[in-house]
Order: sequence, then structure tokens, then C-alpha cells
Amino acid sequence: MHAMALAERLSRLGTETAFAVSAAAATWGAKGNLIYPFHLGDIDLPTPPHIVEAMNRAIADGKTGYCPGPGIPQLREAMAADINRLRGTDYGPDNVAVQPGGKPVITKFLQAVMDPGDEVLYPNPGFPIYESQIEYFGGVARAYRYVPTGRGFAIDLDQVRGLIGPRTKAIIYNDLQNPMSAESTDEERQAIAQLAIEHDLWVLSDEAYFETRYSGTSTSISSLPGMKDRTVILYTFSKKFAMTGWRLGAGIAPPEVTKVFSTMNTNNESCTTHFVQYAGVAGLTGDQEPCRQLLAVLMARRDAACAMVNAIPGMSVAVPESTFYLFPDVTEAMQRKGFAQLSEFATAALQDTGVSFCTRMHFGRPQPGEDRQYIRLAYSGISEELIREGLGRLKSWIEG
Amino acid sequence: MHAMALAERLSRLGTETAFAVSAAAATWGAKGNLIYPFHLGDIDLPTPPHIVEAMNRAIADGKTGYCPGPGIPQLREAMAADINRLRGTDYGPDNVAVQPGGKPVITKFLQAVMDPGDEVLYPNPGFPIYESQIEYFGGVARAYRYVPTGRGFAIDLDQVRGLIGPRTKAIIYNDLQNPMSAESTDEERQAIAQLAIEHDLWVLSDEAYFETRYSGTSTSISSLPGMKDRTVILYTFSKKFAMTGWRLGAGIAPPEVTKVFSTMNTNNESCTTHFVQYAGVAGLTGDQEPCRQLLAVLMARRDAACAMVNAIPGMSVAVPESTFYLFPDVTEAMQRKGFAQLSEFATAALQDTGVSFCTRMHFGRPQPGEDRQYIRLAYSGISEELIREGLGRLKSWIEG
Repeated sequence: MHAMALAERLSRLGTETAFAVSAAAATWGAKGNLIYPFHLGDIDLPTPPHIVEAMNRAIADGKTGYCPGPGIPQLREAMAADINRLRGTDYGPDNVAVQPGGKPVITKFLQAVMDPGDEVLYPNPGFPIYESQIEYFGGVARAYRYVPTGRGFAIDLDQVRGLIGPRTKAIIYNDLQNPMSAESTDEERQAIAQLAIEHDLWVLSDEAYFETRYSGTSTSISSLPGMKDRTVILYTFSKKFAMTGWRLGAGIAPPEVTKVFSTMNTNNESCTTHFVQYAGVAGLTGDQEPCRQLLAVLMARRDAACAMVNAIPGMSVAVPESTFYLFPDVTEAMQRKGFAQLSEFATAALQDTGVSFCTRMHFGRPQPGEDRQYIRLAYSGISEELIREGLGRLKSWIEG
Repeated sequence: MHAMALAERLSRLGTETAFAVSAAAATWGAKGNLIYPFHLGDIDLPTPPHIVEAMNRAIADGKTGYCPGPGIPQLREAMAADINRLRGTDYGPDNVAVQPGGKPVITKFLQAVMDPGDEVLYPNPGFPIYESQIEYFGGVARAYRYVPTGRGFAIDLDQVRGLIGPRTKAIIYNDLQNPMSAESTDEERQAIAQLAIEHDLWVLSDEAYFETRYSGTSTSISSLPGMKDRTVILYTFSKKFAMTGWRLGAGIAPPEVTKVFSTMNTNNESCTTHFVQYAGVAGLTGDQEPCRQLLAVLMARRDAACAMVNAIPGMSVAVPESTFYLFPDVTEAMQRKGFAQLSEFATAALQDTGVSFCTRMHFGRPQPGEDRQYIRLAYSGISEELIREGLGRLKSWIEG
């Protein structure tokens, strides 16, 4: 039935292949095997109870009907205030377009600023939806790479400079990065800002992990001179408040962009769940102690995971100050076990040890010249005890 | 800054102008005026408490993390069972792609089946997002009209036949229609199905009001022979369970389409709010008495509103069996008051009586040859008492 073929654009739609890793782990677990889940960036800790209570108060107050497309005024105000406090910016409610999660900001940003044929620079390895959405909406996805440093990874700024051309419209920048946990130095962040200003680029600043850090403070590229009017911040409640499944986030942007986002909301989903927005207000304005406790739990897990990984022969990782991911170099460990392909290494590790993880292959198409192998270990969904036990098994397996 | 212009596609993005009516009413109300809100299709009644309780049980059970993109299995199963019971179909969980509301099904359907340049037939007057999304994604929006009958409105089938050409890819069909409350006869529904089969068209069957009816039973076009494999049902929890602000719905479709929807979910919003899906299960499988009570309240409002409208000189409406909208012909009432433009009539009515409503102009671009004037009165967000009071004021104003 030729007339009923699906649309051609679907051939350009990518996905998050990490979900296939979840499915493989679930299938293996269903056969009675113990699974150590290091694969998904989800959080196995409860949302703070005062946030749940605020949601129920909103429901009791009748907040079960539609609300404005860009969000309830109370949340837009609370977000602007909180963002200004942590980033030193001067946003107002008109700069906030509430979304059902942080992810919608990626597609809405690209739809708002990118025409077909425009080029967009994006981090690779990086969150795979960048690549998918650039190509889905007819853009040209130009990957930029990271290089290992003694303390993590740094953006290959020379490569970024070389990629910018007359059709470059935007750069996606994910400081405190998934999957590498890379954090820019001040110099690197300023260099990206300088390039954006020089070449008149839009910047999508994915700040999903801005407050998921164990020491130091984060800096937003939007706070640098000349950047506010060209930056769209991807903001999410998911990681800070253990609210991944609540689907609450926002785009923080110049008003001409938040107006577009608001119209897109009206077209796509009317509004973000009404009473969940009151929960968000409580998160931002209420007791912050649960957030500190969440970070303390994650930090203990990080310390355990880093120590275990660095004790495994042929694996190594720098201790990251932020996110809840490790991106160890496993090149020698794979050689030791006789694996050339990351996918085969991961499958064997799952079946022989129960340890489930994503690899570099889940974070964008590999670039030419990559000669080291990496996996991603997420420690947000597994207890410290199981981290030790699982990575202990992995160690014995690599050693064996 | 030419380089920082927004994308060209935004020039094709429409919106729901009904929100402007809400804003005008709110502004007028803020000046101390009493407002009779007949403008928005929202529901002013609480969500049944057992649905809220099920959501809180899910939160207590830790359902605050991510869930599968196409929805939790329990909800997909409960929906398939409920849809089969009410529609006589044989859907399974694989036919269900959960969404944050019914509205996302419109954009996802069009993205899945329509290539740029393809033509899509849609009802006009009709829900304005159809027109917006067809054009936004590069399709050609072909409006089909309704003609008044003694008992409501009927699709102009001759016009539909004439609009179908070699580039026609799909027809959007909204039985139990917003804003007209039109319901197809069996013959009309069969004729639309026959055209879809004959010309190999996809059908988006917007069934938002399938269970919002006061007598008789609804029939889904997907249950007609040869239709299941070409039909995508837009399903929503909003109207049946007074859950508009919860944002819960689904596309019911052939598996190759629900797979595409699932990938789009992964790209756009990850998943629909996790614990809200458990609330949906409770709605479908729990006590149905609150739904019956909701319908009883709406029916009393319908009866009050119809009687009042038909008592106003120069206004008339047939008593609809479904939806919560009246679409009275107000041609003579406008003439009596000396108005030629619906927008001026609505503004004057608001300012002189407090009665706020949408007009035909909020439901798609008018078609050539329209010579009657209509307004839409929604009775889902206003009590029976205020319906009588507001429409009484409108009557005095028209008479005066």
C-alpha cells in the first residue's frame, strides 16, 4: 500500500538506544539473574515528601484543570528567582517556559532557531537526542569531540573552531556533561561564548546537572557578557529533586523564544501537568535539606564507584565533581578479555557478572580517529552496597 | 542580526486563539466585573478522589522515576480492554502509545503519516490545532464543512469527495465534534470509512468526547470493517474523568504507528508522568459512579443552556446528545444588535453582560460561502445557576 507509507522524515529520527540496554538487563533479570543496574540515568531515591504534599494541596485546591501554556505564574517567578540566585543572571518570569521535563527544550530549541540545511554543533559523545533532533528537523549535525585530560575531559576547541562555517546556526553546549562528566574550565566556557558571539550563534546550554555536584560551584554560560540574549537554558527538576518521572522542566530564554515555546506548548501538549507545577514551586522555595541529603548519598556512591573502577586492571577514571556518571577508559580491560567491540564486551559483562551499563556507542555516532574505548556507569540507580558488589564481580571477571 | 533570526517554519505555526478569549475575560474580570465563563472547554468539577488516591499509592510505591516511553504495561492493557469493551474492537497493549494528553496525538499522527506537500482533510469549524499542525509540518490543509440539519450538523460529504485527490494522505475525523457537537449518523460514518478505504487514506479519529454523551452510545470509525489498520484514535482521560490538567491520553493505532509514537516520546518528553499513569488505571478499572455523576451534572447544564439559548430572540440551537458545547446560530441576534463582525459581538457581549464565549472564528479559517454566524458556548466550566443567570443577561441584552 504505497499511499499508506509512513512519512519520509521518520528515516531521520534517532532515539536513545540506552533503553535497549534497560530492556536487555530486564530480560536477563527476568531469567532469575541478579542485575547491577549501572545503565540508566534514573534515580532510585524518593522525591522529598514536602514536594508530594504540595502537589496534593494543589489538587485539593482544584488545580486539576488546564493552566497557561508557558506555566503557572508562581512557578515561572520561583524559577527565575532561583536561577538568578544560582547563576547571577537577571531573568524574569517572561524568560521561563515550563515544559514536561527538560528534554522538550531540545526539540523546541531546534525547531525555533534552526532551518533545514542549517548546521548545529553538538557534543559527541553526548546525549543522543541532540543528534536525533537536529537531523529529524533537517539540520546538519556537526559533532565536536572531547579529549582526555589528567582530570577528565576537555572540549577540542580547535575542532569546534574548524567546524564553524557560514551555515552554522547554533551550538549545543552541555557543561557538566552526560556521559563524560566533563566540566569546562572558565577558559573553555569563555572560549565557547566567544565563538558564539563572534559567529552570531544560538547556544543551547543543557544545564540538567547544574546542581548535581559534590564540590565547587557551577557557572552558566548564559551569565557571561553578551550571552543572555543568545542562550536557551535547558532546566530540569529531574536530577536535583529526584523527580525524573514527574516530567517537569523549562526553557529559560529570551522572551521572543519563550513566546515561541509557549505556542509550541499550545500545539503539542496544551500545558505541563497543572498540579505538578505547584510541586515544583515547593521544591524551589521549600526545605533544601533533602537535596543536600540526596547529594550526600550520590557522593558516597561516586567515591565507592571510582575506587572500585580504578582498582580494576585496564580501567581508569578521574573522579568527577558533578553528574552521576563515570566514563572510564576500558581499552586495556577489553583487550585483556579479548573483546574488540564494546557491544560484545557489555553483553558478556552482563551475562557473566550481572553488571549492566551503556557504552560510548549509546552517545552518538563514533567520530573518525577514536582509538580508546569507554563505558558509562551511572550510579544514581544503585545502592553503594550493590555498587561495591557489582564492580567487585566485574573486577574478578576482568582479572579472571 | 540576520544570523540569529528564528526559523522560517514558525511562520506556519498556528495556535488556539481561544486562549485570547480567556485572557480578555480574565482582564475584564480583574476590573471587578462578573464573568460568566462559557469560553473554555475545561471542567470545573473535581477529579474523582479514588483516582487521586491511586496516584498517591503509586508515589508511595516509588513510581517517581522514568517509565517506558509508550507507557506502563498496566495502563496500556487497561486501555486496550476498556476501548475494546466500548468500541467492539480487538486492540492489545501494543496498539496503545500513552501520551501527555490527547493533543500530542495530533502532531504525532501528522508527523508519522504526512510528508511535506501531502494533503490532509480536516473539519472546519473544528479544533484549530489540526490546521496549525498540518501546515507547520508542510502539509496542505484542506477544510471540509458541515451543513445545518434539523438535529444539528452533518458533514458535507459531496465536498469531502471533491477534495480528495492524488496527494490526499489522510482525513481528520472528529465525530462528537468540537465546537459543533455534530455526531455522524451511521451512514455518514460509513461514507467517511468508505472514502478512506477507496482512496487508501489514514484516518485520525479524534474521540475526545466519545464517552461524554447524555443518551445513546458512541461508535468508533475504527470498528468498521477495514478501518482498524488505517485509523489512529485520539484518546484522552481529560473529559471523561475531569482530568484535563493531569495531561493523560494516548494514540490507539496499528503497531507500526505506536512504535513511531514511542520513538517520538523518547525524543520529545521521555515518558508521560509516571504516577499519573497509575491514576489512569484506577480511572478505567475503578468505580464508574463518579463518571456517571459528572455526566448528570453536565446534562443538567446542557438542558438549562439549551432552553435559555432557544429563548433568546435570534438565537437557536439543536439539543446535542454529546460533548459539552453548544454552537448556536446567532445570525439574527447579531443583526438585531447591529453587529456584522463576530469579534465585535463577542466583545460587546462580554462588556455589557459578562458572558464570555468563543466564536466560529476560533475554530479555523472561515470557508467561502459561509453566510450564517455562530458562537460556541461551553458549559463544562460554569454552574447551572450561573448558566441561567448569564444567559438571562444575554437575553435581556439582545432583547434590549
